[in-house]
Amino acid sequence: IAKEVAKLLEMKAQLGGDEGKHKFVLKTPKGTRDYSPKQMAIRERVFNAIITCFKRHGAEVIDTPVFELKETLTGKYGEDSKLIYDLKDQGGELLSLRYDLTVPFARYLAMNKITNIKRYHIAKVYRRDNPAMTRGRYREFYQCDFDIAGQFDPMIPDAECLKIVHEILSDLQLGDFLIKVNDRRILDGMFAVCGVPDSKFRTICSSVDKLDKMPWEEVRSEMVGEKGLSPEAADHIGEYVQLHGGLDLIERLLQDPKLSQNKLAKEGLGDMKLLFEYLTLFGITGKISFDLSLARGLDYYTGVIFEAVLLQQENDHVEESVSVGSVAGGGRYDGLVGMFDPKGRKVPCVGVSIGIERIFSILEQRVEASEEKIRTTETQVLVASAQKKLLEERLKLISELWDAGIKAEVLYKKNPKLLNQLQYCEDTGIPLVAIVGEQELKDGVVKLRVVATREEVNVRRENLVEEIRMRTSQ
Amino acid sequence: IAKEVAKLLEMKAQLGGDEGKHKFVLKTPKGTRDYSPKQMAIRERVFNAIITCFKRHGAEVIDTPVFELKETLTGKYGEDSKLIYDLKDQGGELLSLRYDLTVPFARYLAMNKITNIKRYHIAKVYRRDNPAMTRGRYREFYQCDFDIAGQFDPMIPDAECLKIVHEILSDLQLGDFLIKVNDRRILDGMFAVCGVPDSKFRTICSSVDKLDKMPWEEVRSEMVGEKGLSPEAADHIGEYVQLHGGLDLIERLLQDPKLSQNKLAKEGLGDMKLLFEYLTLFGITGKISFDLSLARGLDYYTGVIFEAVLLQQENDHVEESVSVGSVAGGGRYDGLVGMFDPKGRKVPCVGVSIGIERIFSILEQRVEASEEKIRTTETQVLVASAQKKLLEERLKLISELWDAGIKAEVLYKKNPKLLNQLQYCEDTGIPLVAIVGEQELKDGVVKLRVVATREEVNVRRENLVEEIRMRTSQ
Repeated sequence: IAKEVAKLLEMKAQLGGDEGKHKFVLKTPKGTRDYSPKQMAIRERVFNAIITCFKRHGAEVIDTPVFELKETLTGKYGEDSKLIYDLKDQGGELLSLRYDLTVPFARYLAMNKITNIKRYHIAKVYRRDNPAMTRGRYREFYQCDFDIAGQFDPMIPDAECLKIVHEILSDLQLGDFLIKVNDRRILDGMFAVCGVPDSKFRTICSSVDKLDKMPWEEVRSEMVGEKGLSPEAADHIGEYVQLHGGLDLIERLLQDPKLSQNKLAKEGLGDMKLLFEYLTLFGITGKISFDLSLARGLDYYTGVIFEAVLLQQENDHVEESVSVGSVAGGGRYDGLVGMFDPKGRKVPCVGVSIGIERIFSILEQRVEASEEKIRTTETQVLVASAQKKLLEERLKLISELWDAGIKAEVLYKKNPKLLNQLQYCEDTGIPLVAIVGEQELKDGVVKLRVVATREEVNVRRENLVEEIRMRTSQ
Repeated sequence: IAKEVAKLLEMKAQLGGDEGKHKFVLKTPKGTRDYSPKQMAIRERVFNAIITCFKRHGAEVIDTPVFELKETLTGKYGEDSKLIYDLKDQGGELLSLRYDLTVPFARYLAMNKITNIKRYHIAKVYRRDNPAMTRGRYREFYQCDFDIAGQFDPMIPDAECLKIVHEILSDLQLGDFLIKVNDRRILDGMFAVCGVPDSKFRTICSSVDKLDKMPWEEVRSEMVGEKGLSPEAADHIGEYVQLHGGLDLIERLLQDPKLSQNKLAKEGLGDMKLLFEYLTLFGITGKISFDLSLARGLDYYTGVIFEAVLLQQENDHVEESVSVGSVAGGGRYDGLVGMFDPKGRKVPCVGVSIGIERIFSILEQRVEASEEKIRTTETQVLVASAQKKLLEERLKLISELWDAGIKAEVLYKKNPKLLNQLQYCEDTGIPLVAIVGEQELKDGVVKLRVVATREEVNVRRENLVEEIRMRTSQ
């Protein structure tokens, strides 16, 4: 008997194990999320503002696949390359999910031999980063990119990119913001005059990039400790990276005895001055800060770089609870397309990427706080009936409305109660109800009810479409 | 010496190998493509038509991540599961790219305990299929899905899905089309009365599904040879699957001595009759065919299934050169959400998926053939100058226009020639040019030129925005 019991217990355990196996983990992958209809409504508002701006600046739009050949992405992202998602080798090509939209854009230009384009691209990108979703940091997230490719007179497209950031952040009314600007050539020149060996430029650059998240002391010890920079060089860098200002600072640095001797720095500072002149014409220097601590992590930048941050508003509780950093960034990358061209032909590029997720987090939180009611459909009218056995008549009427382009719904019940139909309108914000009944059918009319005012009018059936259009046009 | 030469040759070969390695393969992954601005313009037209229709029917919109936990997709696609793209195991969760939008939708419903929603979702899905790109078959492709979830009176949502397919295909003017309809219960009932064992229903179903691509003889030999069905059963199926028609056929089958004895088939035929009554009210039965050979490949369908095909137009050479099959499909899947719910609670669903890529192929080819000029930007005005040294003035003016919401461009050159500026407008379809010059600046005016007519008028600077708006409103 003991043996049999043991057997049975074992069988039970096995069954239990199986049950455990069938228990489904019901979630989206780490660092990702679904968008509900309400979230989509907010997201579409933000996209509309951004797309409207990109189109205002004459941009075309392109799209590229979500994955690229693995080798397309290799050697473009420096230390961040480890964050790339690879696809499993299932035979055939080795593929990776795109890490940004810039490298696919450069590949697109080289592949199609395009030397001149102004385009935007809005799509999801993928990074195996540590997500911080409450702050709008995800592993799958949207980028909204605008880039200008082509050989042009200096700083005109660069200035336009900054104007675009300024327009979008103003439009979205996210509160006060600041656009930090620097130039890779100024950084490299600074590294050179501080005594950083050439081979360490990029790695020291990515240390400087951490200054918005860590204090100088930590960054300094990373430079000296991990990266083997001399303490003197580090301290020298430390003096420069605390500088920020406007045209005055540029002028001062152009007089700096060391920097002004460095060819790269001098070029960068000269262009920075030109950039500020154009930004003055655009009337936006009030929100621009030339900031020597701005470095940007990516390897491919070659000239101007910039990053927009939202400024915390002490008195606004809604803003305070969401800690947001950078909401847009970009810069000039004159060498990237050449990396893809068989003959190394360069196509100078400058572009900006809007970090939609953080912006979206703020707006979502703001909507929650304001208790604003957001409609998730655009339905103009519900086709209803007060009596039973009128499903056929409802379907006939709604079909007429659909064919005339009216946005209409009907409850999927044979005999719905009028109260339930009216409640559905209240819940979803449908402004009108078209009610069919025996008498109305005989009289060739439809009873049109305005949900908000409860006003009811009989409308001749042939005039119904026009009446609905009139009453729902803004 | 010979030895040295051999060594050198070997070294050279190695170098050659390395060189080959560095030679970049400049392409998108197999079965994928970029969209150029012109293609995007066509794509957006199609999306607009589809979204407009979905919104007309009161749908909300959701979004889900491009990848799901691998186990979310397991066991949902039958024989097609081998086509799922997996991500590489880089530590953490095992992930797969979504294969369709239906399974993520079901996961979304179960996860959020939603029992009632009408939503659309437009996004890319991924299948490691053999691409046939000239016919619009890709490994990465868009699906445009509309689904109705909830417990409703029978066939009302199902009929609406068919109405939607009818509206979209009519709207897009793709030529003649036919929507084939069947029901999984009718198929299963038919298999039962033909003597197919229960365990073979799904595999025989996927053989029947191939009837649109292979002749009956081949399908029959697959059933008998590969799948071990008896020749009698196969022949019996062969008689049924050649039947197609309308209400008359449904009535006839309801009288069929064998089918009418089968509970499933009877249910399916009863509902099919009801469906046709609703489709008659919608006025669309002319393009609907009840077709017993329609099976649909996916495992999860439980009731009505349908598929829309474009009909070849013999006299139209453009159409002829693109061989297109199915452009939309869908059906009822009442069990899928329950597969995700911990307690197995079912949420009945019915939905339709529009196959945008094939539609896009046709429209693209039609645009090519017609030599229609498609604008890829919406720019209203180019800010230009006839004289040199007016870059600053151009930037000041365009900044004013941007801030007023006018879509404006400027050439990124210090001193562009007027001819080049006008040529740019011709090339890109910009209708107006705002010309600043010394005299105009003195007079406080801007010269506005209409590109098409070469007409020029001086407009006072403070009236320029209004004038541009007026001249570019349709």
